[in-house]
Amino acid sequence: MVSEGMDMTSFYTAAPLCSPSRAAMLSGRLPIRNGLYSDNAFGRNAYTPQDIVGGIASSEILLQELLRKGGYHTKLIGKWHLGHRAPYHPLKRGFNEWYGAPNVHFQYDGTTAPNIPVYKDQNMIGRFYEGIAINLTTGISEYTQHLGEEALEYISRRGRTGKPFFLYWNPDSTHAPSYASARFRGRSQRGTAYGDALIEVDDIVGKMLDLLVNHKLENDTLVVLTSDNGAALVSKREAGTNAPFLCGKQTTFEGGFRTPAFFWWPNKIPAGNASSQVGTQMDLFATFLDLAGLPMPRDRVYDSISLKPALMNGDLDLEKVVFFYRGNGLFAVRKGRFKMHLWTWRTPQEELKRGIDYCPNIHMDGIVSATQVNHTAEPILFDVDNDPEERYPIRPGNSPTIYETAVGYLKKVVEKHQQDLVPGKPALNYCDPAVENWAPPGCEDLDDCLPIPASKVVICDWPH
Amino acid sequence: MVSEGMDMTSFYTAAPLCSPSRAAMLSGRLPIRNGLYSDNAFGRNAYTPQDIVGGIASSEILLQELLRKGGYHTKLIGKWHLGHRAPYHPLKRGFNEWYGAPNVHFQYDGTTAPNIPVYKDQNMIGRFYEGIAINLTTGISEYTQHLGEEALEYISRRGRTGKPFFLYWNPDSTHAPSYASARFRGRSQRGTAYGDALIEVDDIVGKMLDLLVNHKLENDTLVVLTSDNGAALVSKREAGTNAPFLCGKQTTFEGGFRTPAFFWWPNKIPAGNASSQVGTQMDLFATFLDLAGLPMPRDRVYDSISLKPALMNGDLDLEKVVFFYRGNGLFAVRKGRFKMHLWTWRTPQEELKRGIDYCPNIHMDGIVSATQVNHTAEPILFDVDNDPEERYPIRPGNSPTIYETAVGYLKKVVEKHQQDLVPGKPALNYCDPAVENWAPPGCEDLDDCLPIPASKVVICDWPH
Repeated sequence: MVSEGMDMTSFYTAAPLCSPSRAAMLSGRLPIRNGLYSDNAFGRNAYTPQDIVGGIASSEILLQELLRKGGYHTKLIGKWHLGHRAPYHPLKRGFNEWYGAPNVHFQYDGTTAPNIPVYKDQNMIGRFYEGIAINLTTGISEYTQHLGEEALEYISRRGRTGKPFFLYWNPDSTHAPSYASARFRGRSQRGTAYGDALIEVDDIVGKMLDLLVNHKLENDTLVVLTSDNGAALVSKREAGTNAPFLCGKQTTFEGGFRTPAFFWWPNKIPAGNASSQVGTQMDLFATFLDLAGLPMPRDRVYDSISLKPALMNGDLDLEKVVFFYRGNGLFAVRKGRFKMHLWTWRTPQEELKRGIDYCPNIHMDGIVSATQVNHTAEPILFDVDNDPEERYPIRPGNSPTIYETAVGYLKKVVEKHQQDLVPGKPALNYCDPAVENWAPPGCEDLDDCLPIPASKVVICDWPH
Repeated sequence: MVSEGMDMTSFYTAAPLCSPSRAAMLSGRLPIRNGLYSDNAFGRNAYTPQDIVGGIASSEILLQELLRKGGYHTKLIGKWHLGHRAPYHPLKRGFNEWYGAPNVHFQYDGTTAPNIPVYKDQNMIGRFYEGIAINLTTGISEYTQHLGEEALEYISRRGRTGKPFFLYWNPDSTHAPSYASARFRGRSQRGTAYGDALIEVDDIVGKMLDLLVNHKLENDTLVVLTSDNGAALVSKREAGTNAPFLCGKQTTFEGGFRTPAFFWWPNKIPAGNASSQVGTQMDLFATFLDLAGLPMPRDRVYDSISLKPALMNGDLDLEKVVFFYRGNGLFAVRKGRFKMHLWTWRTPQEELKRGIDYCPNIHMDGIVSATQVNHTAEPILFDVDNDPEERYPIRPGNSPTIYETAVGYLKKVVEKHQQDLVPGKPALNYCDPAVENWAPPGCEDLDDCLPIPASKVVICDWPH
């Protein structure tokens, strides 16, 4: 994709884990604004497990809703994870079609929690591990192939209509526990199901691009490939690598936020280029609307700029700011080449004790630490253009002019952001075992409903 | 160079610092065989400071000696560092011409030690910082430009003869303390003299390649670009990065040994390729002789294979073994995808106390540690194809079959190596302040001789 398109090398997610980062991408707004966060405990990363009561707020206007109104046919293939209960269902949030699951393929026992259902549009077609086979002993499942076949069928079918379409393709792999289809299992040099899954996803993406070319749609189709967080280093050999970046998923270091981002659009985006334009996945919101000739809503604050000038002409917007939140906590901010950390945190002590570590083998006193450290009085400054590894803090004692100048303007950026900020109502504060997927819509047709336990609403516990 | 040639991605030095690694490259033999090591203290890295008595043994046959006998004109431009006393002088070891210095550009005061002399062939032309200006305040010196001009002049002059030549171009930069010429100082985004020096070297290498093409020599010239050790992470922002590799210069982790290696030979080496052939700089010895049609000497053991099949045809030699020595200590061995550590060491305690750290910010209990750890009873095993970062040891408890198989054959490789090994006489055991460059050959002509202190031979102290 890079040899035929553009590699954005300073591209970020909006949050260091899946649900809030996906909510931000589709809403064009930070989780702190769109509500997909929790304020139960400062700086705790929250997502949408199946006992969560809430989901993406109905007041949020999502990208697919706007594109659909603008004449696009829309389809989600794969994971949703923005609320699994009926009101949050993707078909109710702007998608014409859906094939996939509301949560990721964690395995449950039907007693403490039920396995996650998989849908084809409004029809439940099975549950992960029950009907949707995933063999964790062999590391084999055909699920990614099904997601691929759905995508190829959709591109062919919609391509023939000559009308515009928006496909949001979200495979569950390469999320742990890893699996790949029989044809791919064992193919990677890495020797793990993770490596095989990566080859399989790569193969399917290649087939999608080939299909677009075969249908002569390549000059009318922008394809973006990116990830919703940095590599999950806790999964060790079953995870990708973040090198050269510091730490991984769950953290506000570059390893949690910086992600690959490849933009492919033959004859529109110059081939074989890299761009240092700082961008985030929230920018896809404004970018897609801009390219579709559709206006942004004007009734709310957006964290989204159009990347069209960077993609088409190589123009750089040097004013672009990136905020690094962990839950409701603003931990860091980047503008230009400098990134300022106001708070740092490695892995909570209670998770470290269980062998979970978001920064394995790294030791930076007071920066990569088990307890949250407040640096507001003397922020930690990195030049992430020169030092993307975040290994050499620029200290006020060593480089006073650079430090004062950069921290000065970054503090102003933060002040303005916090003055203007109207936090959304936190959607991830309450959990309830009764709302788990015991009897999801459609379970009757499959004779796959489980008894729903008594409702017991609790404040969700977020250790991360 | 890669887009027009080949990138060898599993390429190693022979030692994690300069003198022994250069001696190994030019002799085709490990330092433990060629003698450029010390056995004063187990596993101590030793090089050739100016108070060293010894140098590369006269019994070693060096690459340039064989090439010269085979009809090549030979020139060294830049650093030698294989013994600075008269018997070890590069013009006595196979080079027709020399422009450069016997040691690197450390600054001395003329009282505790004199500045290093610079030579044009047998003539001393000045000393670093005295005549050969290096301004450490501004980070400016024209020295690299002089080395570049020498190279371009040599290529033009020898190219016109139509006869073969061997140019060994060794700039002092990017070694700390960093400098760049006035034209390059301030040009790098990194903002350091190190970054500027890198751009300057890159520019000169580009000019050399252009000149080869202009003289129509490109189809008859192999150009290899590589480094004599991993990045010196102790130099922090004035050093390169080793990401994704573990630790840096001075260690036997990948960050100390794995180096870039680009091979450029238009129309001979296929363009735009990478090769996973495991190789070392000692292999340049057999490779160059093979390509020149010259035989290897048969009177001694070599640690060198010809990379011609890998370069020309993409054939892989899977039997290739790499030994990772720290001084006289065999710390690790790699064959195929597995690397086995018998000993590990981070940074000696006495250097850590002085703020020197070869593995900054890394913490791996019992593996990256301040004291030498003997793992011979249960070696540390990494799959460095899948885990080049050396972060996930393969433990006998977790993967018993892989562990036993790999450790089994690697132990046999080590046993055989140690049975056959005839260590060379250690050349780096004795120091003497009297042998420093007080009155180097040619100092009289420049009126730049200093009084030689009384000889006091001591056993060299190697903290590294």
